[in-house]
Formats: sequence, structure tokens, C-alpha cells
Amino acid sequence: MPAPDPGFEQRTRESFARQNAMTTLGANLEMIEPGRVVIGMAHSPALTQQHGFLHAGMLAAALDSACGYAAFTLMPAGSGVLTIEFKINLLAPARGPRFTLVGQVTKAGRTISVVDGQAFEQDEQGARKLIATMTATMMTVVGRDDVRH
Amino acid sequence: MPAPDPGFEQRTRESFARQNAMTTLGANLEMIEPGRVVIGMAHSPALTQQHGFLHAGMLAAALDSACGYAAFTLMPAGSGVLTIEFKINLLAPARGPRFTLVGQVTKAGRTISVVDGQAFEQDEQGARKLIATMTATMMTVVGRDDVRH
Amino acid sequence: MPAPDPGFEQRTRESFARQNAMTTLGANLEMIEPGRVVIGMAHSPALTQQHGFLHAGMLAAALDSACGYAAFTLMPAGSGVLTIEFKINLLAPARGPRFTLVGQVTKAGRTISVVDGQAFEQDEQGARKLIATMTATMMTVVGRDDVRH
Amino acid sequence: MPAPDPGFEQRTRESFARQNAMTTLGANLEMIEPGRVVIGMAHSPALTQQHGFLHAGMLAAALDSACGYAAFTLMPAGSGVLTIEFKINLLAPARGPRFTLVGQVTKAGRTISVVDGQAFEQDEQGARKLIATMTATMMTVVGRDDVRH
Repeated sequence: MPAPDPGFEQRTRESFARQNAMTTLGANLEMIEPGRVVIGMAHSPALTQQHGFLHAGMLAAALDSACGYAAFTLMPAGSGVLTIEFKINLLAPARGPRFTLVGQVTKAGRTISVVDGQAFEQDEQGARKLIATMTATMMTVVGRDDVRH
Repeated sequence: MPAPDPGFEQRTRESFARQNAMTTLGANLEMIEPGRVVIGMAHSPALTQQHGFLHAGMLAAALDSACGYAAFTLMPAGSGVLTIEFKINLLAPARGPRFTLVGQVTKAGRTISVVDGQAFEQDEQGARKLIATMTATMMTVVGRDDVRH
Repeated sequence: MPAPDPGFEQRTRESFARQNAMTTLGANLEMIEPGRVVIGMAHSPALTQQHGFLHAGMLAAALDSACGYAAFTLMPAGSGVLTIEFKINLLAPARGPRFTLVGQVTKAGRTISVVDGQAFEQDEQGARKLIATMTATMMTVVGRDDVRH
Repeated sequence: MPAPDPGFEQRTRESFARQNAMTTLGANLEMIEPGRVVIGMAHSPALTQQHGFLHAGMLAAALDSACGYAAFTLMPAGSGVLTIEFKINLLAPARGPRFTLVGQVTKAGRTISVVDGQAFEQDEQGARKLIATMTATMMTVVGRDDVRH
């Protein structure tokens, strides 16, 4: 894996802050490392499906961001990140009340990166359970700065 | 494909109305037919990614619902629908200002259904463009009524 | 969709002929059009899974080639095609005795193309049934000629 | 994860032996544990794509079997295993000369199991490299014995 651009954490925070969708989800950046990003969020009545669980798509939205930014940490300064595709498997109902979304780069390429994601829920006792997995393909877009435009 | 339960449209509307996530997205049911559901929604600043386009995950959330309800229309009364997994390919930035999400059942099984989804955007001139495709695997859950609990 | 390189059919036939795996499968090119390729193959005892049906992976191999060459027909001369990822949904047991694999480009991009595939079986009476669907992401590799090396 | 049926290893070996496709691939069962199966195979000129690498679909076929049998080890005696869908990401050309395919159950459910797969190549010096990842959804089919019919 290449040595990351030294500004990777700052760039990632700035780009994430511009994702209004993350504010709507109540999602926060909990950890940024080269090739790995962790996002936290809470269950909310505004984000539910018909049985009161977190909507799979809302979970997917936060997990897609975790995966995208995990890839972004390893991209050269001045690049943008684009999701080409992702697949998510839902393993258990998303009850919460807390969720942790982890994106971890499996292969960082010059143009294409593959990232694996895991979604966990924590119950009131702090027990952690894997509720979804994702595989996402990300593209490095040169000349479309993620941050300054 | 089996003849649908006569109450399929009513059941679908009631279940959709209980998805708070769809209200948060500003998504509406535009058409319900046996094996096919169309959802409409608008671009909104609250749902954007870092470049101002609709967040891929938000698009996926609405398209997952279109696919899930397409399968649901063909399920027996008293069943619930559960997304097992989906894959989405993003073909173009989601500019809008309007989006149409179409779920169409490809194979309706007793336990497992496969649904293909398409996301279109309409620009101000009404031109329509395919911006994403989805394949989703849905499960019929017997004894977990989607509507009355 | 761009106008294809005039040599697209010849290039596709030559590249396909170099895929020994297609010979092992007994697969043939049945049709080549810009953005669309059809492959035919027969059920064979050498390709079965534990119940005597065609192994899902063998079906996937032929369908992946149909999708890859569908994308290849629209690539500039001198390019190579590379599968980045694919997803396949198996809808019914692959009994045969004949199979038709269709790859159809959904989005042809400069670097990334998305192709949708369908696998059909034909029974002895000629009835045709959809047994699998695929979505594949293909990459254009410039400077790695598919044919002459 | 449930305690496996004591005959899981024997059942798995017998079912695998009936997959003629694995013989065609030259694939062998290298390890069977509850929830985990490892398959080995070699590069072969009969299985190549146009550049002389192992065809992605052939790799997918072996990896699909590793994933399916990983799920099968945890199924009750008398069950059959069916692949509903899988997705594979190709990370690097499959040069070989040896390949190891690992299927590991992520979630074992009564009806649906989710399995993650990894494909490695070993070069002549024994160095091991991850070349593909898979996520597969498997179904337990009650009353279709994988072995005795």
C-alpha cells in the first residue's frame, strides 16, 4: 500500500463535512487511518423502515461513505473519490441504538480501489454485533478535488 | 408469475407509509403494479455528497424500497418483505432535479425473489437519463405482517 | 454510445479464440454487435455441480465472457478489456441442454463500462427460460492489446 | 454458530466428489472445518483467458464451491446447498501457478447463509497474494439431499 499523502486526515475531514447526507443521518467520523475509516451513528425514528429498524439503504449510505473515505485516505492530494458500485448483505435487523461503520481498503490501485465494509450495532449493554457487510469499488478521479471546489 | 393478492396495492401503500426513511428522502409512491413499483423523489440539499450531487447511498435507499415493494406486491397477504442483499452500479452523477426509481421483479419465488432496479434523473427540460442500476434479492417472511404491527 | 472501431468484430473474434477456457466450456460466439455479444454452449457432464446441473461458476464464466466482449466491441482499437467485478443471481437450475449467454452494454465509459448479462436455457422443445442475470464492471486497458500479444 | 452435524466432513467430501466441474478445474478439497472450506487448484492452459491468466470465471467457479461448501458444513444432515447469488472482485491477474480458494461463513442462518471468499495465488517462491474476493448468498434446501441422490 502506498504511503499516504500527509494531509490525508485533513482532506478526509473536509470532504466528509461537505456531505450533507451525513448530517441528515447524524453520522460522525470516529477514526481516520491510512486505508481505514470508522463512522458512528445512532438509530433515529427519521431513518426507519416499516418495522422500526434502521432502513437498509440508510445503513448503506453511511457504510458507502466509510468505504469511500477509506479509499480516499490513500489517494494523492488533489484527487476526488467516486463510488462505481457497491454490494451490501444485510445479516440482521438494524436495531441499534448505536451503529459503527468500518471501511477498510482491500486493494488500493491507481485508478480502482476495492474496499470492504462492516456495519456493527451496539446495544445498551455495549455488546457489538455484525449486521451488514459491503464490498465497494471506488475510482480515483484526478483533477476533481474533493475539497476545494 | 403468480396472480397477486387482490389487496396488494393497499398493503404496499400502508407499508410504504410506515417507512419514515422515505419521508426523510421526500420519496413518493408513483405507481404500483403487480411486480413493479415506481418511486419519485427530488434532489435536496440535505441529501448530498461532497460535490453537491445526491448521495449514492440516498439513491440506493429509495431504489431498495422500490425493489422491495415490487417483490412485496407479489407476496401473499400476511407476509413481510426483507432485503437480503443488493448491488448498485452508479452510472452518472445524480444531479436531478427529479429522480424516478423503478423496481421490477425478474423472478418471484416462494421464499426468494430477485428484483432489478433502475434510477433515472429528469432535468428541467424533462430529458430522462439512466443514472444507476440495482439487483436486489428479497425474502418473503411469513408471519411477519408488513402492515398491521 | 460511441461509434465502434470498424474492426470490432474481427478483434472480438480473435480475442475470444485465445480464451482457452471457452474451448473447455464448449462455448461459441453466436453474435457480435456494437455493445452486444451472444455466446452459446451446451450442457456437458464435465461441467456439472453435485445435482447434475451446470455448475453456477461455469455459467458465470461464459456469461462473464459475453459481458466482457460486449464492452470490448465499443473500446478503441488497441485496448484490452479487464473484468473488475461481477455479480450473478441464479434464478433456476441450469438444466439445458442448450444455453445462450447475452451480454449487453448498459453504460460505455472511457475507463469503466457497465454490462448486464442474461443466461437462458433452451429445452428440447426450444422453450427459452431466463436462468441467471449478471451485472459486470469492465475496464478499458489502454496499451494492453487484447489480440496481438 | 450452531454445532455442526457430526457427519459434516464426510457429507462435504461426498458432495464435492460429485461436482464434475471441480475435476475439470483440477480442484481439490484441502481443508474442511465447521464454517470454513479451502480448495486448491493449479493454473492450467485449458482454463485461461486471452492473456494467458486463469479466466476470472474459472476462478469464480472454484471460489463459489469453496463458499457453498463452507455453508454446507453448518447445514443439518439431509440438506442441500444452493447458490442464490455471488459477487466477485478481481484484484490482480491470476498467474498462479497455484491457487488457494477459501470460503468462510460470515452468517449462518436457518434458510440463508452469507459466506465470504478469498482467492490467493502462490508463486514459485511460495509467496501468497490475494487476487480476488467474493461474497456469496447460499440457501439451505431441506429435503434435497446433496449426497445420496
